[in-house]
Amino acid sequence: MSLNALHTPCLLLEKKKLLNNIQRLNTHLSQFAVGLRPHLKTLKSVDVARHMLADQSAPCTVSTLQEAKQFAKAGFKDITYAVGISEHKLVEVLDIQNQGVTLHILLDSFEQAQFIHAFCQENDCQLSCLIEVDCDGKRAGVKPRDPQLIAIAKILDSSGLFTGLLTHAGGSYDCHSLDEIRAMAQQEQRAVQIAADTLRSQHIDCSVVSVGSTPTALLGDGFEHITEVRAGVYASMDLVMAGLGVCQSQDIALSVLTRVIGHNREKNWLILDAGWMALSRDMGLASQQCGYGLVCNSEGDVLPGLCVSSVNQEHGIVALPDTLDTSHFAIGTLLRVLPNHACATAAQHQGYHVICEDEMAYWPRFSGW
Amino acid sequence: MSLNALHTPCLLLEKKKLLNNIQRLNTHLSQFAVGLRPHLKTLKSVDVARHMLADQSAPCTVSTLQEAKQFAKAGFKDITYAVGISEHKLVEVLDIQNQGVTLHILLDSFEQAQFIHAFCQENDCQLSCLIEVDCDGKRAGVKPRDPQLIAIAKILDSSGLFTGLLTHAGGSYDCHSLDEIRAMAQQEQRAVQIAADTLRSQHIDCSVVSVGSTPTALLGDGFEHITEVRAGVYASMDLVMAGLGVCQSQDIALSVLTRVIGHNREKNWLILDAGWMALSRDMGLASQQCGYGLVCNSEGDVLPGLCVSSVNQEHGIVALPDTLDTSHFAIGTLLRVLPNHACATAAQHQGYHVICEDEMAYWPRFSGW
Repeated sequence: MSLNALHTPCLLLEKKKLLNNIQRLNTHLSQFAVGLRPHLKTLKSVDVARHMLADQSAPCTVSTLQEAKQFAKAGFKDITYAVGISEHKLVEVLDIQNQGVTLHILLDSFEQAQFIHAFCQENDCQLSCLIEVDCDGKRAGVKPRDPQLIAIAKILDSSGLFTGLLTHAGGSYDCHSLDEIRAMAQQEQRAVQIAADTLRSQHIDCSVVSVGSTPTALLGDGFEHITEVRAGVYASMDLVMAGLGVCQSQDIALSVLTRVIGHNREKNWLILDAGWMALSRDMGLASQQCGYGLVCNSEGDVLPGLCVSSVNQEHGIVALPDTLDTSHFAIGTLLRVLPNHACATAAQHQGYHVICEDEMAYWPRFSGW
Repeated sequence: MSLNALHTPCLLLEKKKLLNNIQRLNTHLSQFAVGLRPHLKTLKSVDVARHMLADQSAPCTVSTLQEAKQFAKAGFKDITYAVGISEHKLVEVLDIQNQGVTLHILLDSFEQAQFIHAFCQENDCQLSCLIEVDCDGKRAGVKPRDPQLIAIAKILDSSGLFTGLLTHAGGSYDCHSLDEIRAMAQQEQRAVQIAADTLRSQHIDCSVVSVGSTPTALLGDGFEHITEVRAGVYASMDLVMAGLGVCQSQDIALSVLTRVIGHNREKNWLILDAGWMALSRDMGLASQQCGYGLVCNSEGDVLPGLCVSSVNQEHGIVALPDTLDTSHFAIGTLLRVLPNHACATAAQHQGYHVICEDEMAYWPRFSGW
């Protein structure tokens, strides 16, 4: 395996770490009577999906219709599109569903329920609808006790379009301790349980009650009356997850391979060929102070005190600590940068150079909408 | 022309604004005895390049070898790769040059000069080298009066590899007024003029003396003893350029077309289907307070007080001012978001839906290294 043969910058994916991360969540959830519906939006790779999912009938989650199309084409049959739907996307949803896939869609308003209902009548079709529940006030969803919830569920249920409830504790990314994450996991579960109870009192059954975010999936427990957990970044992990305490930096399976392309001796800076185009502009958690990513040697060991302190399009700057000077890093030296946010860093690339014991593979990824 | 038929999110490019922006810099520079070497890294599109360059022999600039390859394939013959070179990239540089292209490379250290010299001897070839001069202490380059400059130039010149000097006033992005930008343009020119004079005193001639950034290109004057100006974002413009006063927001040719996909009535938020994946994570100038971009109606007119205030991967949140409520924006409403940083926003997409009078075209872009 020679990293030296790779054109830099590029993405590395360590298969062993990936498989360990996947196994960890599987093992955790196997203690509970709950399923897993992995989110495939982070790595957007069919090769990765095959390791995250037991088989093609296993449930999965996507964030774009492009992902839905690509994973449907690869044979996956049970896909949740976990972003609120607009009317203009329904034709494409139906196209995908007509390929023999169940594509669950998401909504949180009466307006959406109406146009979905009308679309299904006009097209003489059925769609599977999930109502988004707001568990943390961070983004979208109906509050569990909002009377709108019943109104939306009724219009869907009356025409056989209602499948269940979905919530996402995006607020888990703002937690300051593992205990706060555990509390958030409880809050997430409680929100959909209340919503499901409310609907049950109206004789509307939820066959799906879905929760999830990587932190609440890994630290949550109980999962009573929850049918499935969603999580995505758990497979690769990243510095945000390490900052939350959900993993260690050595668990991160993804990194950007880069070379030193210059020195600024006066400022004691290294210049790398990985700028924001290769690393993304994501700065991770404000509390973390990792700049645009922690710097490792070519083996993947974190070099203490080194991060990418600033970036331009194709330049990364590493301000060295006083204990090191630029002569320690000859021009051409290979380094790796751990990503703040795996979803954002991976999105800047077209595929993964996969380190798999003594061999290398290349797994393509896709992008777009 | 129907924007309604487009899948959102996607990129729009207004051809008329693009051509006006291109013409503006051409007209400005035509007052001086200096050439223009457009930087193609922003839009990375052969179709756009054909409008920025007079013909295939016209000089251009790129930020990656992938761009060099793609533009060489499209027939462009005179390309500057304006990022410091590492030894591992020289084989690819030579491959591109062997396709009948002059590919100028950049360096700022004796170490690089040595490995380029050795490579050319081993491969019995010539490469055209530019020494990067540091005009503002922002990133890379040799200071104009650093004795290393002469040492680097001598090793290159002795083997016929030396072409000239290049500097980039990245510091122009930190200016607070047009007068500061004008002063930065003078500083940029002065730095390479001093460096060129130093080399001339050693009987080393610079056939290229290259300066540039969009702000200093548009506001600079004189350009005495400068052979060429480089600029890239001037063609599309963006909110950073508008924030610097270099253009108006209505000059911005690029925008992200998006749809309203939800309402958070309690918080008076619109939810858009353009998150950071479509807009990028670039927040532009800290002083600007545009969030992740200014929001326009579908015609492209800025809606006063509306910006994308926060983003997730596929969700953008617009916190509405008190004067508006979510009912003004039905689900499905088309909006446009002006980019903070055109290079970063464009990089999230695979092509441009080009608005060209009453017609639409699609111009692909490429990415990678």
